[in-house]
Amino acid sequence: MQKMMVSLGERSYPITIAAGLFSDSASYWPLTAGQSVMIVTNETIAPLYLHSVIEQLFTLGIQADSVILPDGEQYKSLTILDKVFTALLEKPHGRDTTLIALGGGVIGDMTGFAAASYQRGVRFIQMPTTLLSQVDSSVGGKTAVNHPLGKNMIGAFYQPTSVVIDLDCLATLPARELSSGLAEVIKYGVILDQVFFEWLEQNIDALRRLDKKALAYCIKRCCELKAEIVAADEREQGQRALLNLGHTFGHAIEAHMGYGNWLHGEAVAAGMVMAARTAEQLGTFSSSLTERLIALLLRAGLPVKGPHQMSAEDYLPHMMRDKKVLSGELRLVLPTDLGQAEVRSGVGHDTVLAAITKC
Amino acid sequence: MQKMMVSLGERSYPITIAAGLFSDSASYWPLTAGQSVMIVTNETIAPLYLHSVIEQLFTLGIQADSVILPDGEQYKSLTILDKVFTALLEKPHGRDTTLIALGGGVIGDMTGFAAASYQRGVRFIQMPTTLLSQVDSSVGGKTAVNHPLGKNMIGAFYQPTSVVIDLDCLATLPARELSSGLAEVIKYGVILDQVFFEWLEQNIDALRRLDKKALAYCIKRCCELKAEIVAADEREQGQRALLNLGHTFGHAIEAHMGYGNWLHGEAVAAGMVMAARTAEQLGTFSSSLTERLIALLLRAGLPVKGPHQMSAEDYLPHMMRDKKVLSGELRLVLPTDLGQAEVRSGVGHDTVLAAITKC
Repeated sequence: MQKMMVSLGERSYPITIAAGLFSDSASYWPLTAGQSVMIVTNETIAPLYLHSVIEQLFTLGIQADSVILPDGEQYKSLTILDKVFTALLEKPHGRDTTLIALGGGVIGDMTGFAAASYQRGVRFIQMPTTLLSQVDSSVGGKTAVNHPLGKNMIGAFYQPTSVVIDLDCLATLPARELSSGLAEVIKYGVILDQVFFEWLEQNIDALRRLDKKALAYCIKRCCELKAEIVAADEREQGQRALLNLGHTFGHAIEAHMGYGNWLHGEAVAAGMVMAARTAEQLGTFSSSLTERLIALLLRAGLPVKGPHQMSAEDYLPHMMRDKKVLSGELRLVLPTDLGQAEVRSGVGHDTVLAAITKC
Repeated sequence: MQKMMVSLGERSYPITIAAGLFSDSASYWPLTAGQSVMIVTNETIAPLYLHSVIEQLFTLGIQADSVILPDGEQYKSLTILDKVFTALLEKPHGRDTTLIALGGGVIGDMTGFAAASYQRGVRFIQMPTTLLSQVDSSVGGKTAVNHPLGKNMIGAFYQPTSVVIDLDCLATLPARELSSGLAEVIKYGVILDQVFFEWLEQNIDALRRLDKKALAYCIKRCCELKAEIVAADEREQGQRALLNLGHTFGHAIEAHMGYGNWLHGEAVAAGMVMAARTAEQLGTFSSSLTERLIALLLRAGLPVKGPHQMSAEDYLPHMMRDKKVLSGELRLVLPTDLGQAEVRSGVGHDTVLAAITKC
């Protein structure tokens, strides 16, 4: 079992990583007998794990209710979020309740925002079931829902009480979802850790065939990198923005194509190549490194171009609604070397258009 | 001009009180030339003040957009809140924008929650236009929208950058709205300040005929009392709950009758009498003080009984969804003397029913 802390003073919390955690009553810390819980999950995950989670809680003497949402990024909306509030109020659950996010990134983001907002804030536990949510979205307290005009535009910084990563979940994860998670994994290598990027070049095939040792190391390393960044810059006033490599382009793809059609990791993969090409245009990144990135993404089963339906011009209106835009000026995360990146202001729209066209 | 600070460390902010502030460019601190602003207001307030506010911002070199919502508590919902997000994203406004809440408590609560959630948090300024919002809801950072199953159930603790109270607004305020604000004014006397309660007994008629000197003193005193409580207990883990005197009963009236039919202050007025009667049942408050409270509320033009359509039993399901409920147990704010109150657990439902029936 791997255990690490996200250090945020009185809001610090543990991340626990091992196989079989959902069936281990110790995973449900800090819940105690007599407390109440609302499990938020989706139609895909509920038949797989909900029964087992409720059973563990029952043996601990905890009353667990659940709300099952439809599965998919297109349901990460205020309208669906309201179903969580309704379920909480129908019982009713008080300010001393705890929400459990049992699912992937969509469930984690929505449950986190529900916990931030219900009665102005209740406790929540992340139990991420996809590679993407295990390595990225479950850690760090970014919670949100989408708006038709932009991804993650409505949300809060709100930290969980605990993150419980059960490696067994990955056995039931569709291959396309696994690849989507690998996009965020590769991102950590590009922006923060050249050695890890090289490890991925050696081990990408092992990860895709679910080699347990490789997966356990990979998830642990990503969580360590994320925990360090979040501890240093919780509210994204500095280096945390680097975690958005590929996301400004990627969010444009997701919004333009309709949420749920391109998986988040797929859009981020194409977006990372666009960011690398932009950096090439500016002379701050070498094309040979872009080629290494492309080769690794392809081996991970990911796209390296945007959707053929989108022209380069289609990207800009979406990109101008990115949360990094300040005073109407685009700011982009661009790689400068393997394991290094920067936030760059003042990149001309022409440069961006040329980079997208080159992909 | 009166000026005071709400002391919350790096989140401290000023409250400024005077006539004519909306037409004074100094009121728009800390906005500076080149910044962007979204004014959130309603259909009643927009024709009265929106033009003047935009004009002041224009002379400061600030680009101001506005979104005009329908007027009334029944519109304090997630659905109407979404209109604010849409207006922000259509322009689009970035994370460096500032929201201005120009209106009463509904506009203040919604704008505050929009500011807390838009791109996970942007700046906002409170410009309250009703007595109720000037003395209570604009100060302290409680933001929220209602849910059909409970009032203020979805929200955040999120402090404004500044609160600007223009006394001239009260000249256009309907008498019923003025009375509604006086309910919260009287509340401060009951829970915190016997001398102020006695001042109100002397000056309630002057307040109702909009005597400027009396109003200025009254608003300043309420803001001082609120600022002290908020500074000591921002997230309502202790004495801040006292500010909810009458609100557990009052929210039940508002929810049961349909939001907007009973004004918030009207419901709180009847709720304060119910709380006083409950304390009488418990032997912790004297009936002669309840009679003084009733006399003052009546002189302020407020109801002292609940709606005749509601039976005592109708209150309980709503009250059990109150945010003060812990482990399924009702907790009530009850007066113990003039200027003193307590949060009381374990009050039997029979006691509550008997108190409501007595009103």
